[in-house]
Amino acid sequence: MSESTPVIRLKKNEERRLKAGHEWIYANEIDTREQPLKTLPAGGACVVEDHRGKVLGRALLSPNSLIAARLYSRDVRQEPSKSFFKKRIAEALAMRDTLFAEPFYRLIYGEADGLPGLVVDRFGDTLVLQCGTAGMEAYLPLLVEALDAVLEPACIVVKNDASVRALEGLPIYVRAEKGELPTVLSLRENGVDFQAPLAEGQKTGWFFDHRAARARMAPLAKGARVLDVFSYCGGWGVQAAVAGAGEVTCIDSSSTALDFVHANAERNGVADKMRTLEGDATAAMKQLVSDGEKFDLVVLDPPAFVKRRKDFKNGLAGYHAINELAVRLVKPGGYFVSASCSMLLPAEKLLDVVRASARHIDRRLQVIGYEGQGPDHPIHPSIPETAYLKSWFSRVLFKV
Amino acid sequence: MSESTPVIRLKKNEERRLKAGHEWIYANEIDTREQPLKTLPAGGACVVEDHRGKVLGRALLSPNSLIAARLYSRDVRQEPSKSFFKKRIAEALAMRDTLFAEPFYRLIYGEADGLPGLVVDRFGDTLVLQCGTAGMEAYLPLLVEALDAVLEPACIVVKNDASVRALEGLPIYVRAEKGELPTVLSLRENGVDFQAPLAEGQKTGWFFDHRAARARMAPLAKGARVLDVFSYCGGWGVQAAVAGAGEVTCIDSSSTALDFVHANAERNGVADKMRTLEGDATAAMKQLVSDGEKFDLVVLDPPAFVKRRKDFKNGLAGYHAINELAVRLVKPGGYFVSASCSMLLPAEKLLDVVRASARHIDRRLQVIGYEGQGPDHPIHPSIPETAYLKSWFSRVLFKV
Repeated sequence: MSESTPVIRLKKNEERRLKAGHEWIYANEIDTREQPLKTLPAGGACVVEDHRGKVLGRALLSPNSLIAARLYSRDVRQEPSKSFFKKRIAEALAMRDTLFAEPFYRLIYGEADGLPGLVVDRFGDTLVLQCGTAGMEAYLPLLVEALDAVLEPACIVVKNDASVRALEGLPIYVRAEKGELPTVLSLRENGVDFQAPLAEGQKTGWFFDHRAARARMAPLAKGARVLDVFSYCGGWGVQAAVAGAGEVTCIDSSSTALDFVHANAERNGVADKMRTLEGDATAAMKQLVSDGEKFDLVVLDPPAFVKRRKDFKNGLAGYHAINELAVRLVKPGGYFVSASCSMLLPAEKLLDVVRASARHIDRRLQVIGYEGQGPDHPIHPSIPETAYLKSWFSRVLFKV
Repeated sequence: MSESTPVIRLKKNEERRLKAGHEWIYANEIDTREQPLKTLPAGGACVVEDHRGKVLGRALLSPNSLIAARLYSRDVRQEPSKSFFKKRIAEALAMRDTLFAEPFYRLIYGEADGLPGLVVDRFGDTLVLQCGTAGMEAYLPLLVEALDAVLEPACIVVKNDASVRALEGLPIYVRAEKGELPTVLSLRENGVDFQAPLAEGQKTGWFFDHRAARARMAPLAKGARVLDVFSYCGGWGVQAAVAGAGEVTCIDSSSTALDFVHANAERNGVADKMRTLEGDATAAMKQLVSDGEKFDLVVLDPPAFVKRRKDFKNGLAGYHAINELAVRLVKPGGYFVSASCSMLLPAEKLLDVVRASARHIDRRLQVIGYEGQGPDHPIHPSIPETAYLKSWFSRVLFKV
């Protein structure tokens, strides 16, 4: 290691999380008597030691953040070099090559792919990066070089527009580091063609994380009248139409998203089956209930209602309310998919919401499947924060 | 309801489980002051009331069992008639028709399909029934009539040879109620043809519950060197070979099971890829470790190590030991499927076993998927006992 590499020393017993496999170091776990955090370079690499001076590994520093450092290697000699990044990228790519026939997926999922703070989504020959930490931000130029060397894409976009970046004092920007900045991203998922907006889009533009869940939905959509609540650009709804749904209704509050729903339906030859309702999902579902509408399949894929621990109670009440409305809209013998992307809402808790919502209106449920985030969003089993997405598949029967 | 229908009255507050959606009534929850359990007919239907006399539904009686009655309807007028059974069977069949292109699946999964104590597996035009309670046993003739009316199968087998039946004082027997008793069952799963033994076979002869997990395995098997531990008749191993594995090794302690592995491999044109090791799984894996063998994909699908609560500690130690051996046999960058069918081992606990086993030998894991029991084994969300099967899919990397 170079002579100038800074060292952070943990307080007594604060090495335990790292020894159990986690990779985050909180600011209050660092012994700052000899080395105050503010004297450390934002975005530099450092060596991490326990309180006795035993080396634990190497980390990237974000000294202005609550999570002040994140381990990227257990090998103290491992510099965050271009060759290191190439190795990590190649390792991640090997898994995607095994699992996906086409180049549309999350290529790098942060800690779980050994690159803390970094997300890279692949849309064919366009890569979209998002970086959430000062520690990784400092290495973006090297990362772009490494991605270019491994994948030779036509376009590399850095989409650093997430509001969480402000917490680390990081600037908000979207720019192409290679090629031209696209306005629209193209992709294929489960054999269905989509476009999604880049700058106006959520996250990198697309949610690849539901691919496996949407594949699991397909057999339930055949011949069905389908409702897709919180549809965004039609990931579920358009795939349901292509899988043979008789009619699909997408609800979203964004007119831009619904424009993409119609364009994506058109793109796949199912425009005649697609209708959209613009507006608040709860209000729209209440209207459908009072109109006496019923569906063979309802998909409920809301945004995160529980973003912080203190939101838990209100968020849970929100999930209950929309799940009950959704179950009410299912025909007897029909199917219900209930998803949540709240990391703080465990899968078992979401099942309990679904169960209680059904019981409250006297429906009998058969739970016929569970799907987590797809394999291109691997879970680091020692970092619970890497697991966030769950979908429960149920059949709704009337009590007898 | 007929005048002679017996009534059981619950003790105070003992209605709560039923009100929460569960359907079991334990013997010690029944107020036996006026109506001693032993005066009730084994296998009769009864009306269930709370301590105030409010009717909760109708149940089938097993007065010699710890679980003395199981609700089959919340409607007090619902007799356990042939038309009732036909309705339940048709309701279950409708879901399987939606989800499966071919008639090989579990048709009835007990409580979750509204028929407590009954299991029916469908092998084309052969149905195999298993009955675990005196309550349902009394209605087997009606059930056979109802199944015959709905499905018109060539053969209906009652395979009542599970040792748990002795606990209810039920006889052990296997016989054909329609057609000839077959020695071998034929089925197709995920496009692969299999035969399995009936009388010598485990459960009904086949484990349909892993169908979705085996489908999830397929892309990991391509070009791979595969190890299938506790292989039974080759459900995983033969499907891996058909999915393009270079070589598959099946380990099982039953020579009959391994004969079926070879025959099933032959049946699908992959006999040249298949080798088998007869013997204890732990000993066989230890031998492979000491021989320096490594695999691209290891599947570990053991029998239940935790059958009763008091087995938990020892069973958990057993899972740890075999999972660590299995992880040790995975090449860097290879894949590992770890399953458990112990109802008493929750999914999160199994993941913890996998995580700890990998950490103990200094491997880094990426969890790339989870699969529960297939949709033909639906979970009743108020009856945790209906959920038992889980499989975690991981990628195994060496620490850096």
